[in-house]
Amino acid sequence: MEKWYIEKGDQGDIVLSTRIRLARNLREYPFPSKLSLEDRRAVNELIKDAAMAEGNPEKFSYIEMDALTRPQAVSLAERHLVSPEFASSVEGRALLLTPDESVSIMLCEEDHIRLQVMKAGLALNEAFEAADAIDSKLDAKLKYAFDERIGYLTQCPTNLGTAMRASLMLHLPALTRLGHISRLSTSVSKLGMTMRGAYGEGSEPKGDIYQLSNQITLGITEAAALENLNSIAAQLVGREREAAKLMLEKPESADKVWRALGVLQTARLLSGDEFMELISLVRLGAANGMIDIELEKLNELIVSMQPATLNAREEQNLTPSQRDSLRALAVREVLGIRF
Amino acid sequence: MEKWYIEKGDQGDIVLSTRIRLARNLREYPFPSKLSLEDRRAVNELIKDAAMAEGNPEKFSYIEMDALTRPQAVSLAERHLVSPEFASSVEGRALLLTPDESVSIMLCEEDHIRLQVMKAGLALNEAFEAADAIDSKLDAKLKYAFDERIGYLTQCPTNLGTAMRASLMLHLPALTRLGHISRLSTSVSKLGMTMRGAYGEGSEPKGDIYQLSNQITLGITEAAALENLNSIAAQLVGREREAAKLMLEKPESADKVWRALGVLQTARLLSGDEFMELISLVRLGAANGMIDIELEKLNELIVSMQPATLNAREEQNLTPSQRDSLRALAVREVLGIRF
Repeated sequence: MEKWYIEKGDQGDIVLSTRIRLARNLREYPFPSKLSLEDRRAVNELIKDAAMAEGNPEKFSYIEMDALTRPQAVSLAERHLVSPEFASSVEGRALLLTPDESVSIMLCEEDHIRLQVMKAGLALNEAFEAADAIDSKLDAKLKYAFDERIGYLTQCPTNLGTAMRASLMLHLPALTRLGHISRLSTSVSKLGMTMRGAYGEGSEPKGDIYQLSNQITLGITEAAALENLNSIAAQLVGREREAAKLMLEKPESADKVWRALGVLQTARLLSGDEFMELISLVRLGAANGMIDIELEKLNELIVSMQPATLNAREEQNLTPSQRDSLRALAVREVLGIRF
Repeated sequence: MEKWYIEKGDQGDIVLSTRIRLARNLREYPFPSKLSLEDRRAVNELIKDAAMAEGNPEKFSYIEMDALTRPQAVSLAERHLVSPEFASSVEGRALLLTPDESVSIMLCEEDHIRLQVMKAGLALNEAFEAADAIDSKLDAKLKYAFDERIGYLTQCPTNLGTAMRASLMLHLPALTRLGHISRLSTSVSKLGMTMRGAYGEGSEPKGDIYQLSNQITLGITEAAALENLNSIAAQLVGREREAAKLMLEKPESADKVWRALGVLQTARLLSGDEFMELISLVRLGAANGMIDIELEKLNELIVSMQPATLNAREEQNLTPSQRDSLRALAVREVLGIRF
């Protein structure tokens, strides 16, 4: 089954993907943190039955998180299918996942239900509609904790209301190199959004990939939140394109982009950090017509070359140097021959 | 006409080339530094007529050095066809050169005649025989300054006797990286040889290419000098091969070699120093069967990518950044497509 990120998306030169996440809770049960293991399993079963009911178009697999190896679990987080926290503390937690990985439902994460829909490129409305349709099907079978005045009830007050988090993964290599990200990030937060690195927890976001998401869920409709996000994204996309164009006109920058490709095509050892740095430059070149590689291929590489995903693929725990060698081999297989 | 360095030579993985240089002077004239411009021209004419006499197998071109542009003159030095000093002070100096550039005769350098024969790989005896044959032809037509006791008379006493300098260009990337060169150089000098960087005047020899040559010309026959040089070269070749084998077994070194190729195949700007560093690594990989490129191709690149040679090819004085861009383009043309 081809994964969702293989597809071409709108504004795909800069917007890697769109994600809509809805948090829901069952009225009859306390929030997961207050539940016994037994009750969590009962909640999971209830939701599973509702999601996998006959007639639902999505064909979910049901995955009990404690049945996975550690690399398999962390790999799910690297693919943004579950939260890192969900992958690290697996007891009494389960995941519903469609074969193309575009829909995932975390059961007993912070809330009973964390329903997530992913789409390639900029597709906020499309992703929301898909999430909303699944949510309605669940709603018909389950009793949601909902307050007429507040909206959906969630464990964390920052999610109350729509309980919707919409996010976009943006590749901003030129704005990053110009040092504009921190200023943009401040402006964006004044507008009720957050922008932070999508890979790497530290100060330095890896691969120049950022996650832009709405922050406000209370006193705002889903439609208004999506519209705000859409318009901020359009501005960021415009600025990145302009900055990239100016940057690549400089021979020194073009040289860097080409060298990054050369190293990826030939290296025998590639650390995760170096890979992200180089693939970001190559993606910049490809997005601007300098290098003839499909962006979808690069997007897929970015996902599949993360450490635990590599481990999971090999079905064993690799040493860092084995992993670096395997990563280099896998990258050469994708980028090596064509040039 | 294909140049001499296109050919495959013996021990060609490490020995790039062999050069024999004979210094000769005409009995009737003082050394060139004591000659008027007019007399130097007269000397040049005499030697030219002897070299270009009917029946001689070599088809020399006669080049008056002051008729060349500066890049053309310096390019001759970069190709080791003339000395750097000969290229920089051109008045009253001329060059006899065969189309394949394997035989060159500098007229009125330090001595009246500096006859040089180049061969690919390790070919001391072959090169000496070729030089000796040409020397005999000149000797038959000219009156050499020769002393029965001392041998050939030369301006600089270090050349007296055989007046023969035999040198080998050796590519020693592994021994360089192991830090063994300075020790080897000391041992070699105790045996009456010198070893120094073949490119770059400073402390750091460029491209890990060294020139090994005999130092002693007095009280020794040509045959004995060549035999000594041959046996030292054989030892250095053996050590380099061993060191290279051990080095390339390390994944980190193999990675470096491959990356060097990747950068050469893709870079848009390449400085002369970086080019030499990278081509040396690629040559190491190719010499050891890791990378499938003919060594002759790399040897030719090393010669043709030197700064003045690039200038001369373009028939104009390039800025350093134009040159870096042109160098990158030329390197891609040779190494770019195949991989």
